[in-house]
Amino acid sequence: MKAEIIAVGSELLTAERLDTNSLFLTAELNRIGIRVIQKAVVGDDPDEMASSFRQALERADVIVSSGGLGPTDDDRTRTAVSQLLGRKLLLNDEILERIKTRFRRYNRPMPEINIRQAMVPEGATILPNPRGTAPGLWLEAKGRIVILLPGVPAELRALFETEVGPRLSRIAPGERLFTRELRVTGLPESEVEARVSPVYALYPDIEVTILAAPSGIQLHPRIWSKNEAQARKLLDEMTLRMALPLGENLVSTHGETMEEVVARLLTENHATVAVAESCTGGMLAEHLTNLAGSSNYFLGGAVCYSNEMKMAMAGVPAALIEAKDAVSAEVASALADGIRRVVGSTVGVGVTGIAGPGGGTPEKPVGLVYIGIADERGARSQEFRFSAADRDRNRQMATQAALDLVRRHFLFPVAPKAS
Amino acid sequence: MKAEIIAVGSELLTAERLDTNSLFLTAELNRIGIRVIQKAVVGDDPDEMASSFRQALERADVIVSSGGLGPTDDDRTRTAVSQLLGRKLLLNDEILERIKTRFRRYNRPMPEINIRQAMVPEGATILPNPRGTAPGLWLEAKGRIVILLPGVPAELRALFETEVGPRLSRIAPGERLFTRELRVTGLPESEVEARVSPVYALYPDIEVTILAAPSGIQLHPRIWSKNEAQARKLLDEMTLRMALPLGENLVSTHGETMEEVVARLLTENHATVAVAESCTGGMLAEHLTNLAGSSNYFLGGAVCYSNEMKMAMAGVPAALIEAKDAVSAEVASALADGIRRVVGSTVGVGVTGIAGPGGGTPEKPVGLVYIGIADERGARSQEFRFSAADRDRNRQMATQAALDLVRRHFLFPVAPKAS
Repeated sequence: MKAEIIAVGSELLTAERLDTNSLFLTAELNRIGIRVIQKAVVGDDPDEMASSFRQALERADVIVSSGGLGPTDDDRTRTAVSQLLGRKLLLNDEILERIKTRFRRYNRPMPEINIRQAMVPEGATILPNPRGTAPGLWLEAKGRIVILLPGVPAELRALFETEVGPRLSRIAPGERLFTRELRVTGLPESEVEARVSPVYALYPDIEVTILAAPSGIQLHPRIWSKNEAQARKLLDEMTLRMALPLGENLVSTHGETMEEVVARLLTENHATVAVAESCTGGMLAEHLTNLAGSSNYFLGGAVCYSNEMKMAMAGVPAALIEAKDAVSAEVASALADGIRRVVGSTVGVGVTGIAGPGGGTPEKPVGLVYIGIADERGARSQEFRFSAADRDRNRQMATQAALDLVRRHFLFPVAPKAS
Repeated sequence: MKAEIIAVGSELLTAERLDTNSLFLTAELNRIGIRVIQKAVVGDDPDEMASSFRQALERADVIVSSGGLGPTDDDRTRTAVSQLLGRKLLLNDEILERIKTRFRRYNRPMPEINIRQAMVPEGATILPNPRGTAPGLWLEAKGRIVILLPGVPAELRALFETEVGPRLSRIAPGERLFTRELRVTGLPESEVEARVSPVYALYPDIEVTILAAPSGIQLHPRIWSKNEAQARKLLDEMTLRMALPLGENLVSTHGETMEEVVARLLTENHATVAVAESCTGGMLAEHLTNLAGSSNYFLGGAVCYSNEMKMAMAGVPAALIEAKDAVSAEVASALADGIRRVVGSTVGVGVTGIAGPGGGTPEKPVGLVYIGIADERGARSQEFRFSAADRDRNRQMATQAALDLVRRHFLFPVAPKAS
């Protein structure tokens, strides 16, 4: 079965907005066993809307639209689709009553224009919307199914989960989509691709999408199958084969984030962490605290931009900064060790570098970052040269590298040396 | 003139990927004077691709596609469009030579499959791609213009800016899009809408899109006009009229971010800032340091999750925490004043609260946040009750509120009192 998704709304054709409902709809349709063959975004113009729906009816078995069911003049999906399918629009008393009740609950009279939301194309099944005034509509015509949903994401999701999904599941064929998600750190996309692509040929039924996110590279193997056990076995096998060439750079195989992996390792090792960061400006602490319960392992952080702050907040000796420069392997180690002592954590992390765009020199260019890690046995640090032109990207890469150093500290311990 | 944008690529039909090239293309087309009436995403299937292009040719004057120009089997835009327009695909020696040169530069032989990228539909204008192997293609047929661009964003942008934009500008009509961007903080979307919507009726030619971002509410007035001076005058007028009911909540009228406004105010006032944050976990420092040159006004930050850290890093008296609780107006003020003294900055900011999902009590529920601000005259703090269910949203709202407190400190000074 093939589906087409149509997002309705002139605001979705501006340079500021993207239709994101289609990601949710795609995941749900795929899970049920329906492939998405095309997505369209169309404005409020009735002719263009009709043209979109007409063409979708030629190609797809199921058409799911979002938006254009509101009470105002711009909301024309109902009208456009009724005309296209040659159905009359009739006032539905039950919906009207439901809308009136909804307004009464908020002690407000129903505005006249909301009557429009109680108009229903002949023969449509009404999908009650618990979160808003516009119900969803389910139409069957010419062997196709047309489903009209409101554009508000919370309403669309609730309606799909309670009304649309179960109905489609009963008629969709047995083949469904099964997926995995591998997360990789510290390697560029091309290198990840080069390492894992030899595995592709062994699994011709599995399609792999590779995605470069600020947090690293993601591999999404996907397989359509009627046989869940076999699909999962193939995905497991392929994941294992891809894991091998990725080695220590593989962060997770079930979509766990770097923060989740680090949180698990800290918790399992009854360890706590503190950070002293310069060029990442708080981003490292922010990532370490973005999970619920992070106060169990994160004790504290210092954002020390100036040399004075590096001394005052993380106890870095002035003489060391003088001798080695603030952006140096030695100061990264001293930051890590210093903050660990000040805060009293098991592990300390120090970050110092040049995020850019200014501040670079030939010897110490923009993108040069030193990251230190310390425990009770001592401290060590690592040099990174990020090549991004933009400040934010350099800060993100440094943050990921720092989180990864914590991960490796527990997974692949090396003998640390005092620096 | 009307345009349609077609993004080609099966990976864009998964639940993980969105076509974002269309935002850039929309902004550029609008600027030139071309409206986007539809956007489509289509997979690598030649039939479906042909169907998309055929329908776009019925509706639009200009069709811009991205993707499907690579060297592999999946890259079929060239073939699909040639067949649709009834043009032969011919090998272009000049392009072939350029591709070979490109590979030679990297000391690699050109793989056979790359020859495909030198195939050009009869009569097409070749748009040289300085950043990659696939050139863009410009076709004119049946009174329509069809422009095929590669999907790699950097290549697409460079090609549009150097080759496509100037060509389209010469033939596009005089009417162009003019926009403004107002940023608002501290008000929900519905309240912003209620305050500014009475102004809409006064400017029937201006369309306003309202957008709720984590950083606050944005208003995007847009007008199509041949008369730049008049369009700008209308936008200025309308902006002024919308600014009035927004009052102190209006952050900027030309799309400046909250961080940019705060940076400007700190710089203009020769002031520096330091922060001590608990529930925002580094997010406030991260925002204050995300602009280049932030080391001129940001001195340092402490992320103090535990009571011990609040004492050690920001000098909050143990007795105060004992007497008032860590999440209290008094501790927020003490954090602000303490970090200001420790770091030696002009202004100090303190944040303490309950981000959730755990840790709430009936008296101090999840979402309760106190934010303090201090200068040499003393400290004061403000209570916020954010209602978000999710941790990240509460942290974002607290960060925005803290930045806004700094903004208001300079714009609308109140007599601070010691707390």
